[in-house]
Amino acid sequence: MEETFVPFRGIKKDLQGRLMCYKQDWTGGFRAGFRILAPTTFIFFASAIPVISFGEQLERNTDGVLTAVQALASTALCGIIHSIIGGQPLLILGVAEPTVIMYTFMFNFAKDRPDLGSKLFLAWTGWVCVWTAGLLFLLAILGACSIINRFTRLAGELFGLLIAMLFMQEAIKGLVDEFRIPRRENPKSIQFQPSWRFANGMFALVLSFGLLLSALRSRKARSWRYGSGSLRGFIADYGVPLMVLVWTAVSYLPAGSVPKGIPRRLVSPNPWSPGAYENWTVIKDMLNVPVLYIIGAFIPATMIAVLYYFDHSVASQLAQQKEFNLRKPPSFHYDLLLLGFMVLLCGLIGIPPANGVIPQSPMHTKTLSTLKHQLLHNRLVTTARKCMRENASLGQVYGSMQEAYKQMQTPLVYQEPSARGLKELKDSTIQKASTMGNIDIPLDETVFDVEKEIDDLLPVEVKEQRLSNLLQSTMVGGCVAAMPFLKKIPTSVLWGYFAFMAIESLPGNQFWERILLLFTAPARRYKVLEEWHATFIETVPFKTIAVFTLFQTAYLLVCFGITWVPIAGVLFPLMIMLLIPVRQYILPKFFKGAHLQDLDAAEYEETLAIPFSLATDAEISRTTSFADDGEILDGMMTRSRGEIRRMCSIKVTSSTATPCSLQSPCFTDKVYSPRVIELIRDEQSPRLGGKGPSSPRSGEVRPSNLGKSG
Amino acid sequence: MEETFVPFRGIKKDLQGRLMCYKQDWTGGFRAGFRILAPTTFIFFASAIPVISFGEQLERNTDGVLTAVQALASTALCGIIHSIIGGQPLLILGVAEPTVIMYTFMFNFAKDRPDLGSKLFLAWTGWVCVWTAGLLFLLAILGACSIINRFTRLAGELFGLLIAMLFMQEAIKGLVDEFRIPRRENPKSIQFQPSWRFANGMFALVLSFGLLLSALRSRKARSWRYGSGSLRGFIADYGVPLMVLVWTAVSYLPAGSVPKGIPRRLVSPNPWSPGAYENWTVIKDMLNVPVLYIIGAFIPATMIAVLYYFDHSVASQLAQQKEFNLRKPPSFHYDLLLLGFMVLLCGLIGIPPANGVIPQSPMHTKTLSTLKHQLLHNRLVTTARKCMRENASLGQVYGSMQEAYKQMQTPLVYQEPSARGLKELKDSTIQKASTMGNIDIPLDETVFDVEKEIDDLLPVEVKEQRLSNLLQSTMVGGCVAAMPFLKKIPTSVLWGYFAFMAIESLPGNQFWERILLLFTAPARRYKVLEEWHATFIETVPFKTIAVFTLFQTAYLLVCFGITWVPIAGVLFPLMIMLLIPVRQYILPKFFKGAHLQDLDAAEYEETLAIPFSLATDAEISRTTSFADDGEILDGMMTRSRGEIRRMCSIKVTSSTATPCSLQSPCFTDKVYSPRVIELIRDEQSPRLGGKGPSSPRSGEVRPSNLGKSG
Repeated sequence: MEETFVPFRGIKKDLQGRLMCYKQDWTGGFRAGFRILAPTTFIFFASAIPVISFGEQLERNTDGVLTAVQALASTALCGIIHSIIGGQPLLILGVAEPTVIMYTFMFNFAKDRPDLGSKLFLAWTGWVCVWTAGLLFLLAILGACSIINRFTRLAGELFGLLIAMLFMQEAIKGLVDEFRIPRRENPKSIQFQPSWRFANGMFALVLSFGLLLSALRSRKARSWRYGSGSLRGFIADYGVPLMVLVWTAVSYLPAGSVPKGIPRRLVSPNPWSPGAYENWTVIKDMLNVPVLYIIGAFIPATMIAVLYYFDHSVASQLAQQKEFNLRKPPSFHYDLLLLGFMVLLCGLIGIPPANGVIPQSPMHTKTLSTLKHQLLHNRLVTTARKCMRENASLGQVYGSMQEAYKQMQTPLVYQEPSARGLKELKDSTIQKASTMGNIDIPLDETVFDVEKEIDDLLPVEVKEQRLSNLLQSTMVGGCVAAMPFLKKIPTSVLWGYFAFMAIESLPGNQFWERILLLFTAPARRYKVLEEWHATFIETVPFKTIAVFTLFQTAYLLVCFGITWVPIAGVLFPLMIMLLIPVRQYILPKFFKGAHLQDLDAAEYEETLAIPFSLATDAEISRTTSFADDGEILDGMMTRSRGEIRRMCSIKVTSSTATPCSLQSPCFTDKVYSPRVIELIRDEQSPRLGGKGPSSPRSGEVRPSNLGKSG
Repeated sequence: MEETFVPFRGIKKDLQGRLMCYKQDWTGGFRAGFRILAPTTFIFFASAIPVISFGEQLERNTDGVLTAVQALASTALCGIIHSIIGGQPLLILGVAEPTVIMYTFMFNFAKDRPDLGSKLFLAWTGWVCVWTAGLLFLLAILGACSIINRFTRLAGELFGLLIAMLFMQEAIKGLVDEFRIPRRENPKSIQFQPSWRFANGMFALVLSFGLLLSALRSRKARSWRYGSGSLRGFIADYGVPLMVLVWTAVSYLPAGSVPKGIPRRLVSPNPWSPGAYENWTVIKDMLNVPVLYIIGAFIPATMIAVLYYFDHSVASQLAQQKEFNLRKPPSFHYDLLLLGFMVLLCGLIGIPPANGVIPQSPMHTKTLSTLKHQLLHNRLVTTARKCMRENASLGQVYGSMQEAYKQMQTPLVYQEPSARGLKELKDSTIQKASTMGNIDIPLDETVFDVEKEIDDLLPVEVKEQRLSNLLQSTMVGGCVAAMPFLKKIPTSVLWGYFAFMAIESLPGNQFWERILLLFTAPARRYKVLEEWHATFIETVPFKTIAVFTLFQTAYLLVCFGITWVPIAGVLFPLMIMLLIPVRQYILPKFFKGAHLQDLDAAEYEETLAIPFSLATDAEISRTTSFADDGEILDGMMTRSRGEIRRMCSIKVTSSTATPCSLQSPCFTDKVYSPRVIELIRDEQSPRLGGKGPSSPRSGEVRPSNLGKSG
C-alpha cells in the first residue's frame, strides 16, 4: 500500500475496490449453503463470551452503570452495521479490553467530581465519543491508515502480549475476589459467612481451572488420536463454548446443599425489566455536562482515537495476512471512517463503542479458509472420482480438476493475477505423474488416493463474504434477549475463560516465542528448529535476539505498569504509538539492518525484492499446501503472523516420495544440515546464526519474504 | 529357567548363584559413592508415599487397628531383611494394595463375629500369616517358581491394570468422602458443618487435582525445553515427592481463615505416644483365638499365599526384564522362601506383611541403569579425552575406551558371556571410523563429539547392588519416627497420589495400549506406528487384536467385580491364577499360534529360535543404545515389558549419518515401507497385518524375540 496523504484518496480507493465485489460478497456467502453456519457459530461464541466477560468487568468497575447488556448491544449493533456497509467483512467488531480500561479510568475520574458524578458519566462519555469520532474522521480522511505498514511486528506483538497480560490480570483479580465479599452486596447474607465465602472461593478455583484446562485441551482435539474425525473437528471448533456449558452445568451440581449465590453468577440486569433501558436516553443529559468537562473530554478522546485507530487497523491487518491469499481488496481508510460514525452512534445512546478485535478477526478469516478448503475439496474429489470411473489418465483427471477449480474461483482477483493455487495443482500433479512413470495410463484409487492427494494439493484460500459476519452479529444481538439464560453462567467460569483467552493468544506471537527461547536450555535449542519456526532463529545471533527481546520486554512492562497508574494510565496507547519512531529511528542504531529485518520486518527497510524462481515456488507450495485434516492449516495460520514459518520435517506421504531427501541436504527430521548443527553446537560463538558459505541453504529463498512484500 | 520340581533344588541353585556375587553386591554399591543416593531417595519416595496412602486406607478400613505406622514398619523391616539376606536385591518390598484388600476383607469378617471381633483380629491374622508362611515354604521348596514363565504378559498386564483400577477407585472414594462426615469423628465439630464440609470437599478437589496434574507434568521434565539439564533431571526424579511437599504447603495457606481440621490430614497415631505399640504384642493373644477360626484361617491364607506367590514373582520378574541386560542370577525360589519367613514374622508382631511390589521394583532397576550409565559415561569420556589430548587415532581411542570399559564390568557374568556392550562399542566405533575415511588419523573434538558419541554407544547396564535397597528401607523405617511430620500431609494429597500412581502405571502396559488402539480412529492408526510400538501391531490383524482385547477386558472386569463381593472377594487372586490354564489350553483354540505369540509371548510356545546375524545385532544395538539424556532410556524401559519395541524414526545424529536411509527401505520418519502403508490403508480388509511377500522387513529379525528367550 502506497503512503499517500491526499485527503479522501484512500477512502475513495477503498470504496471503489469493495463496491466492485459487493454483490459477490453476498452471493458467495449464500452459495456456501448451510456450511456457513460452522464458521458463523464459531465466531459468535468467540465474540460473545469475551464481550460478556468484559461486560461483567465493566459492571463491577462502573458500579453497574454499564453492564454486559450494553456491551452486547454495542457489539451487535456495530457488527451488523459493519457487516452490511463496512469495507472489509472479515473484520470482527466487539467491545474490547482496552475500551473497558478507558471507560474504567473515565468512570473513576467522573464519579468523584461533584458536578459530574456517576449520574452524568454516560453523558460525559457521549462527549468523549463525539470528540473521538471527529478525530477518527480526520485520520480516515487524511489517509492515516496508509502508514499501517509502519506498525511492524514489534508494535503489534507487544500490543498482543499486553492484551494477554490484561486478560490474565483480570482472571487472577476475579478469582481472588471470589474469596471476598463483593461491594454493593449485603455482607450479612448467608453466602458471605466466612465458611461459605471460603467454599465459594474453592468452588471458583475448581470451576475456573476446570474450564481453562478442558478448553485448552479441546482446542487441540483435531490432533487427538481417539474418536472420529468429525467428532474431533466438532470438539475443536465448538469445544470452548461446549466447556462453558459443561462447567455451568457442573456449577449446579451441588445446588441442593449450598445456599443461593454459591457459586456467584453474572449480575447483569434483566433486559426485559422496565428500568433496563433508562440509561439509553443519554443524549438528553449531554447538554447538562459542564462546558469545562466537554472540552476536557478531548483528552480521553485523543487516547481512544489513537487506540481505536491502532487496534482497528491492526485487527484488520491481521485478518488479511498474506498467508490467507485473499483475493478481495482491503479497506483500511473507509473502515476507519465508518468506525468514527459508529463511535458517535454508541456515544449518543450511552453504550461503550466497539472496534475491530484481536484475536477474533484473524480467527474469523481462518475458519473461512477451512470452509473454503472443504468446499473445494468436495468439488474436486467428486470431479476426480467421476473421471477415474471413466478410466481417464492422470492428464485427463488433472484437466477436469483444473476446470472444476477454475469454476470455484472467486472471479475478482485482487492479488497479482498469478492464480497460484491453480499453478500448484498443475505442478504437483505433473510431478506426481512423472514419479509414477507415465502421465497417460489410466488411474485407479489404489494408486492415486484422491481424497489425500487433493487435500495435499489445495492451496490456502478464504471464503470471503459478508454473511458470516452479519449472522454472528445478529446472534450476539440475540444474546441480549437471552440474558436471563446467560446469567446462569458462574463468574468463575468467566475468569477461567479470561485465562484461556490470554493463553490462547500466545502461540504464534514471535515476541512470546523469543521470550521462551531465552529460557530454553542451550542444549535444547535444536528442538525449536525441528518445528515450525521463524527465519530469525537461523539468521540472527542468539545474543542479538536476547537483547532485542529484553528491550521489548522492558517496554512491555512499562506499558503494563502505566495501565496501573490511576488516571495517567489512559496514556498507554500513546506508548505503543511511540514504538513507531523508536523502531524507525532508534533501533537501527543498535541493531544491524539484516538482523532487524528478520526480527521485525518493516516494509520501508525492504530494498531488494528476492526474485521467485520456479523451484522456489515449488518449495513454498510444499510448505503451504500440505493440509492434513486441517491440522497443518491450523498450525500454519494460528501460529504465524505475516510470516510463513519453516518446518524442518518435510512431510513425505506414501506415494509422493519427493526426491528431496536423496538429492539435496534439506531438513528431513533429525537429519540436520551442517548449518543447523553449527548453530546448535556453537552457543559460545557470538554468531549463533549468520550466513556462512558453508550453508547449503544460502541459495534458497527465505519463505518469510512472501509475507512482507505486497 | 528349566521347569523342575525336585524339592530344594531351586533354592539351592539360587543360593549358590547369589552367594557367588554377594560380596560384589556390597562393594559395587559402596564404590558408586554418593551417586547411589539419587536412586536410593527416588525409590524411597516411590516406596514410602504409597505405603503411607495404603496405611491411611488400612486405618479407615480397620477402624484404626492397623495404621500407616504399622504399614511403614512392616515395609522397613521386610525391606531391610530382604536387602541383606534376600536373593535378588533389585526387588523392592512393601505393603501393597492387594494386602490392604485382603486385610479389609478379613477385618470385615472378623469384626462382626462375637468370639473374634476387632480385639482378636490381629491375633487371628497372626494365624493367617502362619498358614500363609507354611504354604509359601511349600511352594518355594517344591520349586513352584520354575513355572514363572507361564505367567505370560496376559496375566501380568491384567494384574497391573487391576491394580491401577483399585488405585483409581480408592482415589475417587477418598475424594467423595472428603465431602462427608468421617466415621469415628464427632459430627458436631465445627469443621463438619455443611458449609465447612462443602469447603473441605472443594479444597480437597483443588489439592488432589493439583497434585495429580503437577506430578504427571513433573515426570516429563526430562523432555522439557526450559531449564538446565540437571534441573530437569532433578525434577523428573524428585518431582513427585516435591509436589507432595508443595501441595502440603499450599494446604496451610488458608490456615488463618479456616477451622482446624480443614483440610483433613492423616490421623495415624503418634509412634512416640505410649499406646502406639500395644497392638504389637499380638503373639500373646494368639492362643485365645477359637480353634475353629485357627483352622478357618487356612482359607484366607491360601488366597494370600497365591497372591504373594504371584505378586512377589511377577515383581521380581519385571525387575529383571531382558532389556536390562542383568549380569547376576535371579533368585525366585529362595526369595519366596524368605518371604515366607517374613510373613511369619510380620504376623507374629501384628503388622501387615510386605511383598514384592509393582511398579517400584522395575522402577528401581531402571534408576540403577541410569546410575550405571552415568558412571560408565563419565569414565569413558575422561579416558577418551585423555587419549585425544595425546593425539591418538580413532583406533587408539577405541582401544583405551575398551580397556576402561572392561575395568568397569561386573566380573560375574550371568547371561551368555557375549559381553554385548563391548561388542557394540567396537562395532559402532569402527563403523564410525570407516565413514570418516581413516581409522588411523588423529581425532579432535570437533570431529568426534566424545560426550555425545559415548552416550550413543553405551548399552543398557544396571548397577546391581544391595546398598540402595538397604538404604531406602532404612529411610522408610525413619518415616515411622517422622510420623508427626508426615501427619501434616492432607489426605486429599494422598488421593491425588493414588490417581497419579494409577495413571503412571498405564504406559507400557500393552493391554492398556490395545484398549486405546480399539478407540483410535482408523485414520489415526498410522500415528501408533510412528512411535515405539509392539510387534503385534504390525503382524496381527486388527480384528484379532480387538477380540483378544475384549476377552481380556471382560476378564478384568470380572476380577474387578469380584473385589466388590463382600467376603468371596478374597478369591480374586485365584481368578488371575486361572488365567494360566486359560492361556495355555483355551486361548489357542480361538487364536492362531503366531498371533497369540505376538500378542502374548509364552515361552512354551517358542519352538524356533531365530538366529542372530551380525547385521541383526547391529540393528538391535541401534535401537537399544541411543540414550539421549536418559529420555530414550526412560521411554524404552518404562514403556515396555519384556519386549523391545520398534521405533519408526531412527535417530540419526550429526556425524553418524547411518547409511540406513539410503541403502535399505527402513523406517525413517514419515517414510513408510509399503507394508506399513498397506496396513494403514487396509482397514476394511480382515488382515490389517499379516506377513506378505511384499514386506521388505520379512527377512529381518523381530527384536521382540530378544525379550523372550533365555
